[in-house]
Parts: sequence; C-alpha cells; structure tokens
Amino acid sequence: MFKHIKELQYNAKPTQPDPVYAKKLQEILGGQFGEITVMMQYLFQGWNCRADQKYKDMILDIGTEEIAHVEMISTMIAQLLDGAPARDQEEAAKNPAVEAVLGGMNPQHVIVSGLGATPTDSVGYPWNARYTIASGNLLADFRANLNAESQGRLQVVRLYESTTDPGVRDMLSFLIARDTMHQNQWMAAIEELEQAQKAIVPSTFPQNLEKQEVSYSFMNFSQGEESAQGRWASGESMDKQSNFEYVANPEAMGQIPQLQQAPAYIHNSPDPTKPAPPNMESANYDKQN
Amino acid sequence: MFKHIKELQYNAKPTQPDPVYAKKLQEILGGQFGEITVMMQYLFQGWNCRADQKYKDMILDIGTEEIAHVEMISTMIAQLLDGAPARDQEEAAKNPAVEAVLGGMNPQHVIVSGLGATPTDSVGYPWNARYTIASGNLLADFRANLNAESQGRLQVVRLYESTTDPGVRDMLSFLIARDTMHQNQWMAAIEELEQAQKAIVPSTFPQNLEKQEVSYSFMNFSQGEESAQGRWASGESMDKQSNFEYVANPEAMGQIPQLQQAPAYIHNSPDPTKPAPPNMESANYDKQN
Amino acid sequence: MFKHIKELQYNAKPTQPDPVYAKKLQEILGGQFGEITVMMQYLFQGWNCRADQKYKDMILDIGTEEIAHVEMISTMIAQLLDGAPARDQEEAAKNPAVEAVLGGMNPQHVIVSGLGATPTDSVGYPWNARYTIASGNLLADFRANLNAESQGRLQVVRLYESTTDPGVRDMLSFLIARDTMHQNQWMAAIEELEQAQKAIVPSTFPQNLEKQEVSYSFMNFSQGEESAQGRWASGESMDKQSNFEYVANPEAMGQIPQLQQAPAYIHNSPDPTKPAPPNMESANYDKQN
Amino acid sequence: MFKHIKELQYNAKPTQPDPVYAKKLQEILGGQFGEITVMMQYLFQGWNCRADQKYKDMILDIGTEEIAHVEMISTMIAQLLDGAPARDQEEAAKNPAVEAVLGGMNPQHVIVSGLGATPTDSVGYPWNARYTIASGNLLADFRANLNAESQGRLQVVRLYESTTDPGVRDMLSFLIARDTMHQNQWMAAIEELEQAQKAIVPSTFPQNLEKQEVSYSFMNFSQGEESAQGRWASGESMDKQSNFEYVANPEAMGQIPQLQQAPAYIHNSPDPTKPAPPNMESANYDKQN
Amino acid sequence: MFKHIKELQYNAKPTQPDPVYAKKLQEILGGQFGEITVMMQYLFQGWNCRADQKYKDMILDIGTEEIAHVEMISTMIAQLLDGAPARDQEEAAKNPAVEAVLGGMNPQHVIVSGLGATPTDSVGYPWNARYTIASGNLLADFRANLNAESQGRLQVVRLYESTTDPGVRDMLSFLIARDTMHQNQWMAAIEELEQAQKAIVPSTFPQNLEKQEVSYSFMNFSQGEESAQGRWASGESMDKQSNFEYVANPEAMGQIPQLQQAPAYIHNSPDPTKPAPPNMESANYDKQN
Amino acid sequence: MFKHIKELQYNAKPTQPDPVYAKKLQEILGGQFGEITVMMQYLFQGWNCRADQKYKDMILDIGTEEIAHVEMISTMIAQLLDGAPARDQEEAAKNPAVEAVLGGMNPQHVIVSGLGATPTDSVGYPWNARYTIASGNLLADFRANLNAESQGRLQVVRLYESTTDPGVRDMLSFLIARDTMHQNQWMAAIEELEQAQKAIVPSTFPQNLEKQEVSYSFMNFSQGEESAQGRWASGESMDKQSNFEYVANPEAMGQIPQLQQAPAYIHNSPDPTKPAPPNMESANYDKQN
Repeated sequence: MFKHIKELQYNAKPTQPDPVYAKKLQEILGGQFGEITVMMQYLFQGWNCRADQKYKDMILDIGTEEIAHVEMISTMIAQLLDGAPARDQEEAAKNPAVEAVLGGMNPQHVIVSGLGATPTDSVGYPWNARYTIASGNLLADFRANLNAESQGRLQVVRLYESTTDPGVRDMLSFLIARDTMHQNQWMAAIEELEQAQKAIVPSTFPQNLEKQEVSYSFMNFSQGEESAQGRWASGESMDKQSNFEYVANPEAMGQIPQLQQAPAYIHNSPDPTKPAPPNMESANYDKQN
Repeated sequence: MFKHIKELQYNAKPTQPDPVYAKKLQEILGGQFGEITVMMQYLFQGWNCRADQKYKDMILDIGTEEIAHVEMISTMIAQLLDGAPARDQEEAAKNPAVEAVLGGMNPQHVIVSGLGATPTDSVGYPWNARYTIASGNLLADFRANLNAESQGRLQVVRLYESTTDPGVRDMLSFLIARDTMHQNQWMAAIEELEQAQKAIVPSTFPQNLEKQEVSYSFMNFSQGEESAQGRWASGESMDKQSNFEYVANPEAMGQIPQLQQAPAYIHNSPDPTKPAPPNMESANYDKQN
Repeated sequence: MFKHIKELQYNAKPTQPDPVYAKKLQEILGGQFGEITVMMQYLFQGWNCRADQKYKDMILDIGTEEIAHVEMISTMIAQLLDGAPARDQEEAAKNPAVEAVLGGMNPQHVIVSGLGATPTDSVGYPWNARYTIASGNLLADFRANLNAESQGRLQVVRLYESTTDPGVRDMLSFLIARDTMHQNQWMAAIEELEQAQKAIVPSTFPQNLEKQEVSYSFMNFSQGEESAQGRWASGESMDKQSNFEYVANPEAMGQIPQLQQAPAYIHNSPDPTKPAPPNMESANYDKQN
Repeated sequence: MFKHIKELQYNAKPTQPDPVYAKKLQEILGGQFGEITVMMQYLFQGWNCRADQKYKDMILDIGTEEIAHVEMISTMIAQLLDGAPARDQEEAAKNPAVEAVLGGMNPQHVIVSGLGATPTDSVGYPWNARYTIASGNLLADFRANLNAESQGRLQVVRLYESTTDPGVRDMLSFLIARDTMHQNQWMAAIEELEQAQKAIVPSTFPQNLEKQEVSYSFMNFSQGEESAQGRWASGESMDKQSNFEYVANPEAMGQIPQLQQAPAYIHNSPDPTKPAPPNMESANYDKQN
Repeated sequence: MFKHIKELQYNAKPTQPDPVYAKKLQEILGGQFGEITVMMQYLFQGWNCRADQKYKDMILDIGTEEIAHVEMISTMIAQLLDGAPARDQEEAAKNPAVEAVLGGMNPQHVIVSGLGATPTDSVGYPWNARYTIASGNLLADFRANLNAESQGRLQVVRLYESTTDPGVRDMLSFLIARDTMHQNQWMAAIEELEQAQKAIVPSTFPQNLEKQEVSYSFMNFSQGEESAQGRWASGESMDKQSNFEYVANPEAMGQIPQLQQAPAYIHNSPDPTKPAPPNMESANYDKQN
Repeated sequence: MFKHIKELQYNAKPTQPDPVYAKKLQEILGGQFGEITVMMQYLFQGWNCRADQKYKDMILDIGTEEIAHVEMISTMIAQLLDGAPARDQEEAAKNPAVEAVLGGMNPQHVIVSGLGATPTDSVGYPWNARYTIASGNLLADFRANLNAESQGRLQVVRLYESTTDPGVRDMLSFLIARDTMHQNQWMAAIEELEQAQKAIVPSTFPQNLEKQEVSYSFMNFSQGEESAQGRWASGESMDKQSNFEYVANPEAMGQIPQLQQAPAYIHNSPDPTKPAPPNMESANYDKQN
C-alpha cells in the first residue's frame, strides 16, 4: 500500500516557460528509458520477488522513489507549458519565426492535455509496458536496471546540455545525482550476486549441457580482423572458466535447410513447374459437398 | 554489405513436429529479448559507431552472427509446424483432447503464415524497434547488450526445460553456449571501458554539477529496514568516489506544487466555485466575428 | 513523494494455484480498463491539475489507492502461478488433457516473467499510455473516470463469475466494492461540476458560435425509425437549452469534394487518359543537373 | 449494408492551404478521441448489441453519421495540404523562417500520403482499435460514449481557437454543434437506463457479495485533508444506497506478501546467501541425458 | 455521407456456436489483411483521390462495400460466441477436455466484449492504421489493393478449410467470391494505368536521373546460383526498357564508412585508449556556472 | 549464415550535415515501406519458403541486398546529423529562425541515439513486424513485394525532390535504380507464377465452392455511376473465366441480424424496459455461498 506526501522529492521550478523544451523533456518521463519505465520495472520486480526480503524491500524502496521522479518531471513540464500560445496570434502572424518556434511544440500539449504533461516520449509515442522486464532472476534483472540507469543518466545529461534555464538545470542536477547512486546501487547488488552464484545468467544451468566447444569463441563474421584487438578475443574468460578464442573465419556447422511441402489445405504455392491443379484435387471438400 | 551462405550456422532439426512448442519458441525469435532484438541492436550500434574501428568491427561481427541465429530459429519453427492440422478433422472430432492441444497453437501459424515462422513473440505480439537501443555511448550500450544476453540465455534455458525433443535441445544447447560467450564478451568490453574511463555513465559529465549530497544515499521509502542489509547500503561506493549512506527516513526536499490557471482559450475547467461564465467572456472571438 | 507500506490494502490469497485463471486475471491488471490504467490516469490528472486544491488532493488520493490495487493483483497472479509446470512432464505426456489445460496459460508467464505477473492484458498485449487521458478539463476527465470505473467493475464481476476459488473471490469482492465507491465518487464530482458550470463540455465555448441549427437534432441515418422511440429523440434536451428534434431523413449539407491535382514533384498519379509524360517534364531537375 | 452519398454532410472548404494546421487537425481525425474512434466504437457497439432494437438502431445511426465526419475532416486536410512545398525551394532557401514553418508539417503528409489525410493523430501516431470499447453492457458503453464526445468536443474547440481561417472554423462549428447533440444524446440514454436499472455498473451483481464495508468510503491516502471538502466525502451516496464516509487515515487490511520459491526448472535466482549450486542439482536433465 | 441499410449484404448464420472458431475468425475482421484494413484503406484512398472522378467513385464503391463485410463478420462472431461459458462449470470440472477446448477461446470475448466481436486479430492484437496505405499514386495503391485482396482471400480460404459448419462456410463462400471479383477489379485497374503510363512506379521520375547501370541487374548475394534460373535473371525486362542481367558476384561500390566523433556535449563514448577526461573539459558549463 | 563486407554497397556521402533532412530520410529506413520492411519481409519469406530452391535462393539474394540498403541509409543519416546542435547556443539565441529550423529535428536524434540513425520512421514511430508478410503462398507474397517496391520507390523519389545535396541525391539515385530492378523482378516472378497456375490467389481453391453469382460483379454502392466507365465494369474478367458485370443498385442478400440475449453471468445490459432485477436472480452464487 502507498501514501502520498504533498511535497515533491526535490524542487521542480523552471525560471520561465519553454514549450519546445517541454516536448524534449518528455523523453525522460515517458520514453523507453524514462522514469515511468524504471518506476514500473522496479515495482513489478519487487511485487514478483521470490527471493530474500532484503531484495524485495530494496527494489520497492527504489520503485517508490521513482514514482516521485515521475511526479517531479510531470510538474516541471506543466510549468514549462504555462501560457503556451495555442492560437493564431497577432504577434505570431507578424513574426513568422515566433510561429515557427511554436511549430516545435508537441501539438498534443495544447489539443489533448491542455498544457499538461503526457505519459509519452519526446516524439509523442506513448509509454508501453514492453519497455520493462521482471524476469524472476535477480541477476538478469539487476543488469537490466543498471542498463536503464545508464541510458537514463545519459539522456538527462544531454537534456541538461540542451537548456540554460537554472531552475530546470537544478532539478536535472538532482536527477543526475540520483542516477549516480542508482548505477552504484545496481553495481553493488550485481557484485553481491555474482560472488554468491556465478557470473553467467542463469547460473543454475549445467554447463555440460551446453555446446561447450563454442562457449568461449569470438567469431569474426566480417572481412578484416580489427575485432581481434579487444579484451574479448583473448585471455581468460570473464567467468574464469576458460580462455577466449578468436575464430578468424568461422565455418557453418549446420544443414542447408529444405522444408517440406505444406498440406494441400494450407493453400501455399503449388509447384509452378506443373500445370494448374484441377479444381477438386486438394483439401477436404468432397465429404461436405 | 552482406553475403549469404546457404548452410545454417548450426543444425536446426527437430525430431518431430510440435506446433504448440513452435508457438513458445517464437519468444526467442521475435520477443523483447529474442534474436531479432540483438540482431537489430548490434547492427545499429555498429553502423552508428563513432569510436575506434575495433569496436565497430566487433559489434558488427556479433550483429552478423545474430542474423544467422534468426535464420536458425525460423527454420526450426517452420519444421515444428510441419503438417500442423488446420481443419476440423475427423480424428480431432472424435478426440477432443487432441483438438484441445491444437487450441494451444498460434492460429496465425495457419491462417497468416501458412506454417511459417513469424517475427512475433510467444503471444503473437509483433517485434518492434523500441526493444533496441543504440545510444552512441558504448559503455551504456554494452550494459544494454549484457542485459539482453542475460535475459536471452535465461529464456532459452527455460525453453530447453520445456521440451524433451533431442533435436530441439541440440539447437538450444548451441544457442545457450553462444550466449555464454556473448555474456563474457560484453563483460570483457565493459571492463575495458570502465578501466579507461569511469564506471558511471556518462563519465564525461562534471560531477561537481550534480547535486552531490544525494549521489551516494540509499533512501528507504518503505516501512521497515530490511533494505539496509545489502552491499548498496554501506561501505565504499562502487565507483570508489564516496561511501554509501543509508537514509532511513528520507525527507521531501521540494515544493508543494501549485500550477497556475491555463489561459481561457485552452478551455480547461473553469473555477467551479464561481457562476458559469457568460458566453463571450473568453477567447478571441470578437476579432473574427 | 510517496511511501510504501508493506501490508497490502486487502488480502490477496488464492486457495490454490490456477495458471489459466492467472492469464485471465491479467485483464484487470494491465488491460485497457485495468488498474494500471486508472492508476496512471488519476496520477497524471492530479499532477496536471490547475484547479482548486480539493480536486488535486482528491484525485491523487484515489490515484495512490490504485497503486495498491496494482500491487494486490500482481501479488495474486504470482501466487496463482505457483508451481506452474513449464516442462514436458511425464504426467502431462500420459494425460493430454492436462497438457491441454496448460496450453491455456500465457507462455510468457513461464518464459519471460518466471511465474510473475506482467503489465499486460489477458491476451498478453502490453499496457500503453494511450489508455489514459488527462485533458485539463475536469468535467471531461471525470466522465472518463466514471467510464473507466464502470468498465472496470464490469470486468471484475465477469472474472468473479469465472472462478469458484474463495480466496480469489474474496479479493475480487473488495475490488468490486471499491469500484462501487469510485463510481459513486465520480458521479458526485460530476454532479458538483455540472451544477457549477453547464453540462456540455467545454462549457466555456460561446454557444452562438456553434452551428446551432443542428445542436439538438437526432439524425436517422438508417432505414426504419426504431431510434425515434428513445428519450434522445424528443422532449427537452439534457442541457435544458432546447428540445430534441428527430430528423427522419437527413439531407447532405455540404459540397461534392473535388481535390485539385498535386504538384508534379509529389509524383502522384498522372492523368491516365493522357500519354505518358516525357522524362523531363516535371519537377526541379534542370536547375541541379 | 451501407450506401455512399457523394455530398459531404457539411461543407469542408478551407479559405487557404495551411499544412501546419493540417498536422494539428489530424488529432480529431485519427487521435484517441478523434472521429475514427467514435465511428468504430459506435459501429461495433451496434453490431454487437443484444438489447432492444431501438438501441441497436440508435447506435448505428450515430455510427453511420461518424463515417461522414471522418470523410469531412479527411477532405479538409487534403485541401489544407494543397500545394505544400516538398522541395528545397529557392524561396525557402532565402527565407529560413518559411522553411522553418514548414518544419512544423508532418513529413509523412509529403513522403507517404502525397498530400492526403492519414488515419493518424497530430504526432503521426496511427489510430488503433484499443481506443474503442464495446462491452455488451449499454450503461457502461454509453458512459464511454459520453466521455468520448466530451473529450472530442473539447479538442475541436481548442482547434477552433488555433485558427482564424473562416472556412475551417465553419466546418468546426458544425462538428461542435453535433458534439453538443451527441453529449445530450448519451446523457439522455444514460438517464433512461439508470432509471430502469441502478446507477452502478453492472447493476445485476448482488451487492451483498461485495465487501460492503468499503463500498462508500472515501480513503484519504495523502497528507492533508483538502479532499474532505467535496460532495464525494459526505452525504448520501449517488446510488442512494448509503452515505459517503471519509476515512482520514486508511489502514492496510491485507497480508505482507511472501511468495514461495519457484521450481528449479524456472531458473529464477538461487538464494544468494548459499554457495553456487553444483551443475546437476536442478531440473530434469538426468532422465534425458 | 453514408446511409445504413438494416439487412446484411449476405447471410451470416452459423449452424451452432463455436467460440474457439470465433477467435480464429477475428483474423479476417481485425487482422493485418482483414476487412477493417481494406475498408479503411479504400475509404482513405477515395477521400484523398486527386485523379479522375471515375477512380474516386470506384474506390469509394468498394470501400463502402467493405464496411458491410466488417458488419457481416462481426455479426457472425457474435453468434459464434452465443452461450460461451464464462464460468467454472460443473460439467467442465468433470470433463477437463471441455475446459481445455474453452482454453482456446480469446478471454477478452468474455471479459471485455461480453460475447461480442472485437476489432482485433486472431491473437487479440488490435487493428492499427499502419496496416493501410493511401499514397496519392493510384498505380502504387492499386498494387497495395491487389496484394490485400490476395492475402485476404488466402486467409478466408484457410478459414473455410478450418470449419465444417455449413452456415459459416456459406458466408465465407460469399466473401471468397467477392475477393475473386476484387482481385480481378484491381488487376483491371492496374492494366489500365500501366498502359496509360509506364509500369514502374512512379512513372514520372526521369529515368536518366537514376543510376541506370544497376537498374536491370539481378545481384546474387549468396553462394550458389539457383536464382539464375528465373525469368527475372535474363530476357527483356518487364518494363521493356532493357534486358535483365545476372551478376553472379556483385562487388561493393561504396566507401568503408568512418563516422566522425560527436561533439562533447553529446556525451558519446570518450576514446577509451586515452585517460579519463578531467571534469571540466567538455561542454558548455563555464558560461552558466 | 551471413558474412559482412566492410564497404557499403554504394556510396553514402552527404555534402553537408542537414539534421532536418535526416529526420525525413528516416521514412525509407524504418517506415512502413522502408528498407527494414523489405529486408525482414524477404528474409522471412526466404526462410519459410517451401517451394522450389530457385525461389528460396532468389528471395534470400534480395533479402541480403536489403540489409546493405539499411546499412547505407543508416550511415547517411549518421553523417547528416554530424555536429547537430543539442544545446541552447548563443547563435541560436540570437537568431530564432536558426533555432526554429532545429525545431524540425527529431529530438531523439540527440537525446536517445546521440546523433545516430534509429529504426523508426520520419515521425519517430518505431518499426514493427506487422509491416511484413510471409504467407507461404508465393504469388500472394510477390504481389506484396511489388507493392512494397512501388511504395518504396515513390517515397525515395519524393525525398530526392526534397533535397538538392548532390551526395544525398547520388545515393538516392542508386536506390531508385535498384527499386526499378526490384519492381521488374517481382513483375517477372509474378508473370511466371500466373502462367503456371491461375491469376486468382489462391489458385487451388475449387471455384465451384465460391458463391459464383457474385464473383464478377462490380457493385455500385454510391449515388451516380462514374465507376461504370472503367475496365473493371465490363468486358472479359482478368482471369479470363467470365465477364465483368456492373450492378448499378446492389440489393442486400442477407438477414436483418437479431442477436440473442447473453447469459446472466455475462452481466450485459438487462432489458431496460423491465424493473431492476432482485439481487440474487442471476449467475451462480448460491452454489458457492
């Protein structure tokens, strides 16, 4: 169960309206790696957690914090839209450049939401749940979380660079700091799990059942061998079970596929090298007609 | 540019048809973390790569391999669908359980694709490009890749557990092994980058510009303190810049938001505590009428 | 800002696992009118609210409650999935009907979420933000909310009818009761607003600017006049501004549309009654070539 | 069955082209609450109607009218796009502001539709069927319809405010008037149904089976009690079955959830406080290998 | 403008309910090539038509017919769902196979639509407008239409094979016949246009501006030359402008791409072969701080 | 299996950056008829092909070429984005028109992809797999392919008209030429198949089972008879099996639909002409309560 506290977690006070920037800021609200994504991802990971309570509690702590981030950014966007001109104003008519700047707004901020934030990204695409994952395997999911916080902080930083409004930057500097913590947090949790189990997800699958001759081979599927220069191409493997091998010219190990004809009632292509079939040659018509 | 080789990278030969399993296997073909996802993600990361050629080449090597994985699984699914009954057969009519098993098929495997694989997941939802990310920041993207390979290997293992067909398991054991390599590969690339730059993405943002007082604080947003027991709640932070701090009862630091009224031409709610407005009181009607 | 309380708002304790029912129950979690929809709809309406604080507070109260409903249903689904068979078991092999029942599961409950709830509906379609509306006009939005609670309670009732598990029915009886309250609540808020302003949304548009000769006409666009029997076809209009009129045979009032040819550089169809154009007749090639 | 009449229901004649406004106007064509939505919603409600013929007929009358509205707006958009510049014109090159205004166009109006309307909204997002509902319960659906007409009229009014073109405003004034009628119509139908049955949807569920102690309680899930001031917090409930109660500090009534471990073959997280499992400890490998 | 006629275009009378078949039949209602697709595609092509009136009229004739097809199939589905069991019945409990067959139903047919058709396909995926095209170029669009009628008739035939219900087959035999006509119709219109203009769309682009040395070359991008055996590999080209050429081993004609570094304020990857940047080295911080 | 060659198939070298054009160019990369569509469509058609190897090989040849086209356009877009300004620059502040032009960019090109191409269209909508078809029937699919190449070439030509950059035009002239070949190729393959079988898809369905009295009738569903003037309204049918017939005033051939009431446990609307039901009159409560 949840309780709401009226104060925001941190200030969301723009210095002045900026409806074009409001459109851009939507990315970290309702985008692929926006705050709605981490909020929903963490809440579902927490609710589905079948592991030790310290994990469930930790995940729900951060999930609950993310609801507050969604709240802060929504509030900021609503204020950036204050007084956004919706109509064909005299001033705009006189000054096509002003009109044009407004052309950079998201029209739904006027028509649909009446100057409010929307759960969409910076091109207006609605948030959807396939942005999230809660797999039941904590190590897999913590890697998903570290990825989300990495992409997320990168996007916030790019948005910080895209404005000079001190109020907006103040809020973003808070979000950037929290993302620093959250990257650290997931790295810590990952380290803990990798030490307790093994580094390859899932660690519980018996390795003798995988096709082990290709488990540590880097396969060079392109001309040239620049890819041989990296850490991934030689030396001990990261899971410490073997050594990396560089396969300069990987060979095909499988068959040339030959699919059989589909049954007549599927009506796939008849063999075009033969004459057209008589009307009744296929399928199950006779018994019903 | 690309060239096609007729042999599959590895064998895709089921022992017998199994149209219900074909539906499940779609998950690792066209699902959120299926092979189409990693294929497209790596190809776009490679094509957009502005860093050293060894990275671009490495990413495109693995991206090219993933096209072959899509090919193998598609071929497997088409064979699992061989002879799938589409019609109301006498046998099925006599044996409702047989009919019922077929109820577990994806109907589009008959109606739409004529016994072929489709670029969709195990519930028939079509693959879409928001499953992928190519951010231009390699460390961020390699974390995305490690996540994708972790979720992917987990799903393949679960599918391995869901069948006893030796031919299917043979192909899956190859994919599991390659995912072992690919997890190792991205871990290696991440380690290399983390050592060259810093661990927090993006490493290039000046840390003095973030709100540093909350950069290492774990905030406990729920009753109870089970979350204090983890590595994330105390000790040196993972980026080695500070120490984790546990905030048992985090306080709100922001304002209580108060949004101003929208302009009349937006037609948001009038103040309901006042009488209904006269017809002409708002907006820009007079000048046009 | 939000705080999490570990107890659920109400019990979510199934009597026994039922993975097929878990799939159905997803509808009221992540479906068009599921709990995620009302949670997000109310939170965004609250955060965007530019009206009196009593509305903002009321909307956020109910929005916060809905997060708890998402939590309850997610928890229920995870328990309904307890021990769901993922593999090709001996028993199932012997008993095709058992296998078939399991064919009614959502395969992603095994492969993707590892026996956890997912933010999707009963056919596995992911929740998306276009299910919600926050228009800035409270009367419009409260009608959206009354609709959502009506569709929602209807779906919960249908799911109540689809199970006999006392634990599941206990939780559903709580949700049904809360939906009774929430329908009442939005009806109360609507009545308050309709009395303060006018019943037609938006009430602030000057009615003399609309084409008033068709503002109260029921137009019969089909053969037969059964539709003349309803309250909507005669008597005083609901906004008390006029009387309903039944137009038995509505006439077209507009032009026959005739669009002009597109410019040559658009390459729409040339007029097929004339000879094919010479190569250089259109577009802006000469100046660049 | 349907017949087409060449004249539009009302005139759709812009005074001059305006491709940027064409983009905005798409919202009421293919948006969440655009004309395609009500057209499809009403047609499906009518075709699925299992109630008295007067309802089926009435719903199909209005559904048929909405096809004509889609036609009118499509025709208007095509004309607003007349002569929209697709190419890098000399004039534009000389006048970056002109070019910039064109930057506000939807590029698909040139590249994809060749100056035609598209079944998408004002950000180019395609219309989809999850915008509609036909539940089989008329009272629920009529509330959906009243909501759609309320949001729809609000959006048309906002678009009316965004232009001064007399021809566009003339068409919009017709649509606004029809939406006045349609809001009245659904209010009338709702009143008729609420009087015949009860106000809470579905009215057929026995109220003694719901958890009646919370059926009329407003729960205050946030700090502060501004929400106590509304009609929803005290007095007789709208369904006249009880009185509203204000719960200032709602208590959790449910359990603290504790999920059990998943079976080994699901490969969720092993308990990280224990050593890594030996390779063969889980799952069903021995019997097949 | 449109008028509704109460009779269906053709009978839609199943012999008995069949809720599992109802799910499958959804494919030709709301699927990628279902009747909603052709209805919307033709209506928009007609409304956007800038060519001769005979085309506009013809396209709208068929578009109007397709609305009637949507009506017929919706009506059929509603009847196939008559009496579909929603609850945990005694009989089903006794007979797991019966229950299992019902597991093949679309659960939304009970929970969401109350035994009505839905605008979705056979896996429950909602219809969306990206299934349609109206490009403004008639020859391009008529090819789209011929494709839609070909895929559509194929799907209807497969569904005909999947049932033995005489009533369902009767309706499908009507739809199959109309698709025969509609394929003929678009072939006729295509022939007319190809004769008036040229066969390559768009025919108005000056062919000397395309890179003509590759305009008629079949490029063999795979091992082996089976593809040389087709009509496409030799002989006169279909547009009669040249001869097909078979390129057995196509060479790359382009550069090896080398992208330049992104500006510092984008925060892409720093060069990992160099030391980590000092905090203040990039971006525009100094001027604001 | 596939191999990557580092050179592009053809040059992708813009003369100068143009981030607004980069946004438009996305249409032919990730749009409905962009290169990703044909790449995925051909690859899946090839992998699922159950016909003669010459078809499988041919389809995979062109599918492999299309991967190279995706690569070329991605590379072009990345270069068009070189140096795109992300921040609130001094120059832009001084010159609002410059800022405005940048308003025409896709904001995700900065925030999400860091100046890289994205698998989306020109309005930022992500590519999805429902753009493709692989039906198993070659004639149906080759018509889909001819359509895709026709729409595709039309879009490339429109984009050619929208720029004067010689480098961009050079690449586009290559793509236009390849689309000339690909239209020719599919026309050749279609001709071959139509001659071997019959022209109506699927050719294997016995024509005596379709409702033949309407198989060649053009039905005029609108006022006026302009549509009688076309090739489709008279003369021999294209499949040479009959003659076209023009039905000036088509009659309804079906029933007036009357659906029966839903069972009580569905909770559809009760008959509003009767009194509200007593609480216990419906559904299955007694046996459980």
